[in-house]
Amino acid sequence: MTVELIDSMGDDHSIARAARVSSGTTGTPERNRGLINMLMRDRHGSPFEAVVLQLRVECPIFVAREFLRHRMASYNEVSGRYQEMQPVFYAPDEHRPLRQTGKPGAYHFEAGTPEQHSLTSTAHKSAAGWSWEHYRWLLKEGVAREVARNVLPLNLYTSFYVTLNLRSLLNFLSLRWAHPDSTVPTFPLAEIEDVAMQIDQFARTVAPDAMAAFDKNGRIAP
Amino acid sequence: MTVELIDSMGDDHSIARAARVSSGTTGTPERNRGLINMLMRDRHGSPFEAVVLQLRVECPIFVAREFLRHRMASYNEVSGRYQEMQPVFYAPDEHRPLRQTGKPGAYHFEAGTPEQHSLTSTAHKSAAGWSWEHYRWLLKEGVAREVARNVLPLNLYTSFYVTLNLRSLLNFLSLRWAHPDSTVPTFPLAEIEDVAMQIDQFARTVAPDAMAAFDKNGRIAP
Amino acid sequence: MTVELIDSMGDDHSIARAARVSSGTTGTPERNRGLINMLMRDRHGSPFEAVVLQLRVECPIFVAREFLRHRMASYNEVSGRYQEMQPVFYAPDEHRPLRQTGKPGAYHFEAGTPEQHSLTSTAHKSAAGWSWEHYRWLLKEGVAREVARNVLPLNLYTSFYVTLNLRSLLNFLSLRWAHPDSTVPTFPLAEIEDVAMQIDQFARTVAPDAMAAFDKNGRIAP
Amino acid sequence: MTVELIDSMGDDHSIARAARVSSGTTGTPERNRGLINMLMRDRHGSPFEAVVLQLRVECPIFVAREFLRHRMASYNEVSGRYQEMQPVFYAPDEHRPLRQTGKPGAYHFEAGTPEQHSLTSTAHKSAAGWSWEHYRWLLKEGVAREVARNVLPLNLYTSFYVTLNLRSLLNFLSLRWAHPDSTVPTFPLAEIEDVAMQIDQFARTVAPDAMAAFDKNGRIAP
Repeated sequence: MTVELIDSMGDDHSIARAARVSSGTTGTPERNRGLINMLMRDRHGSPFEAVVLQLRVECPIFVAREFLRHRMASYNEVSGRYQEMQPVFYAPDEHRPLRQTGKPGAYHFEAGTPEQHSLTSTAHKSAAGWSWEHYRWLLKEGVAREVARNVLPLNLYTSFYVTLNLRSLLNFLSLRWAHPDSTVPTFPLAEIEDVAMQIDQFARTVAPDAMAAFDKNGRIAP
Repeated sequence: MTVELIDSMGDDHSIARAARVSSGTTGTPERNRGLINMLMRDRHGSPFEAVVLQLRVECPIFVAREFLRHRMASYNEVSGRYQEMQPVFYAPDEHRPLRQTGKPGAYHFEAGTPEQHSLTSTAHKSAAGWSWEHYRWLLKEGVAREVARNVLPLNLYTSFYVTLNLRSLLNFLSLRWAHPDSTVPTFPLAEIEDVAMQIDQFARTVAPDAMAAFDKNGRIAP
Repeated sequence: MTVELIDSMGDDHSIARAARVSSGTTGTPERNRGLINMLMRDRHGSPFEAVVLQLRVECPIFVAREFLRHRMASYNEVSGRYQEMQPVFYAPDEHRPLRQTGKPGAYHFEAGTPEQHSLTSTAHKSAAGWSWEHYRWLLKEGVAREVARNVLPLNLYTSFYVTLNLRSLLNFLSLRWAHPDSTVPTFPLAEIEDVAMQIDQFARTVAPDAMAAFDKNGRIAP
Repeated sequence: MTVELIDSMGDDHSIARAARVSSGTTGTPERNRGLINMLMRDRHGSPFEAVVLQLRVECPIFVAREFLRHRMASYNEVSGRYQEMQPVFYAPDEHRPLRQTGKPGAYHFEAGTPEQHSLTSTAHKSAAGWSWEHYRWLLKEGVAREVARNVLPLNLYTSFYVTLNLRSLLNFLSLRWAHPDSTVPTFPLAEIEDVAMQIDQFARTVAPDAMAAFDKNGRIAP
């Protein structure tokens, strides 16, 4: 999972400025901080849309599938119709919990046994390797890229640009990271949580007061 | 590819009624037909949002990935985190063009040779079979479904409910079906074109005048 | 303020069905009720998008201005460019609080004095009457409707169709009605709160279990 | 009508970069120009979402009402609930066509007679002046701002921040400016066309190649 910040527009000041067009008040940085906290607490979401980030994400297809469910964002993704894919595949490392108990909506995860980890690693590599051989074989025999790619697995890496405003980004974070300060019940996939953690860091450099207010108010998107 | 119409709201009359709230005129079915044609021709899109369809789609993951790029719609899809997947895989049949020439944005497709078809069929089955064995093996050894599914291929079938209004549906059709009457330059994937053709039929039963106007005006979404 | 339910699609069963495509479980009405409550509590919003309502609203322009800020909805409104407006104007009745104390985000409202009520009523009528005379005068002298309407006041009645899914509708209710069960801090305008109350009733006839779950979980939109 | 460019993100290069993530090709400025033209012509809209503008608009309420119908944008507007409004009112100048013939969707406009211009100017001032007196009177007697504002007319000036991506901006331009190069049938209100012309200029400074491609391809939003 790799996330880069490509571009951004606006900062904490932009949020305060957008909010003050309604209220007509003016403010110091100190008072802006208080205003931003109030906006977050009372769920006045629209001023947070004045900050926009563009990111580039590299992740397995199964993570991209979850990410692109977030509709309040703009996407451009590598296309296997137009490009030959590269053989880069994800496999869980030794920190990835492998055992799941409980029922949907309330799973508990535990580390796997050494055998389970070894097996998981082997299975990811073996399935990916076999799929990749078939992909290459089809291409070599002149079959179109858009057909050959069908045999590739969900742990193949893809990459995409995503442009989204801070309000939508906070919604993403609230659902995709089970953060200790979060009051939103959420059970994110470990791999998308890793993406969310990286995005959180970038958002913090762009709009630190807004992110502090997000933490302080239960990490609920306004 | 299977598409079912699950539910719908509104029809041609609803479109005319929504449009007439602006203009204040009233109309017979005959005049509504003319009105709907004018709305389509002059790109007054909002009245077409008064008709909503809910569909259930079964298709391979690589088709679902393209479908879910359409953001003006509501989705609920089978989750491999919560459910054990079923071993149903897509393989191109003998009518699926396999050879691609030209460059991105202007590909030409041709039928493959018998050898290419045989090879493609074999590769889809072989890769899917091997992936499935690994999936089952991981599950049997107690690895979580959300981890085991990583090894499954893009030609695995998924299914989802999609709810979208007629305006968004027409946009989908304009981009995902290279229809003879279409004036929009588009090069859809054969498999999503099959889905689009089925959706077109259902839309025609719900709002026949709107669909006739769509055909008559170059199949451009208003 | 008048709200009519024009059409709808789906009900509580549709919500449960959309949710179960993910989980693969089946359910009785009793278990669906529990499922819907869990979805609301844990903020799984997408299944609520499977229910869609179409409403017709008649309200003053200053209320419509707030309503149309809700972007996840489809609108068709009477146009003063195409139609001659009708002389129907809003004036607050004796129950409308007239006095505001405190500061933005934390206003308190109190009933006005009899003098204030009388004055408010007179001012609304006098300003509307004068504006209307000028509107009629301009039309009579051959000035275009789209120019003449500029002189009309914000308390003129307008009407529109709105089509929105239940998730968006719940968001509207959470922000536009300071309901006793609500845990969302909100200070809606009295007139749009009246609209929200009527919409709440219609939603309750369409999806009673979802509305009960909304009440039970603090009237926070999922 | 006043429009200011407050902030922006991205430029022509951002559009090409977003598009190339799909195709995997690289390019010189010259080739990027060709690529952007192809994207516009073939209606590949998503790369244009990588450019975002924030504008501040001052215009009469009747113009803001039309602007805010564009849902793919973020808004923060002066609120008459929180602020006392300022007595700035719009009146058509001598260039504003005043006479309308034909029927909805196919109006023709002509300059008014000197008498009509004089009358229109008088009516705008008289109605606004009378409304303003009542607004001030209600405020002086202690009636809440959110009630007093009801008597104000649609030609009162408001102002708002709007943040929108270039794709949404092009859609706005295609519908709100009957530009000589446009092939979209549209009959915009003169006052919003004035706003659109100003926005067009700002967009041209941010992404000149995209705007040239827009002109060259019939000013249809991709």
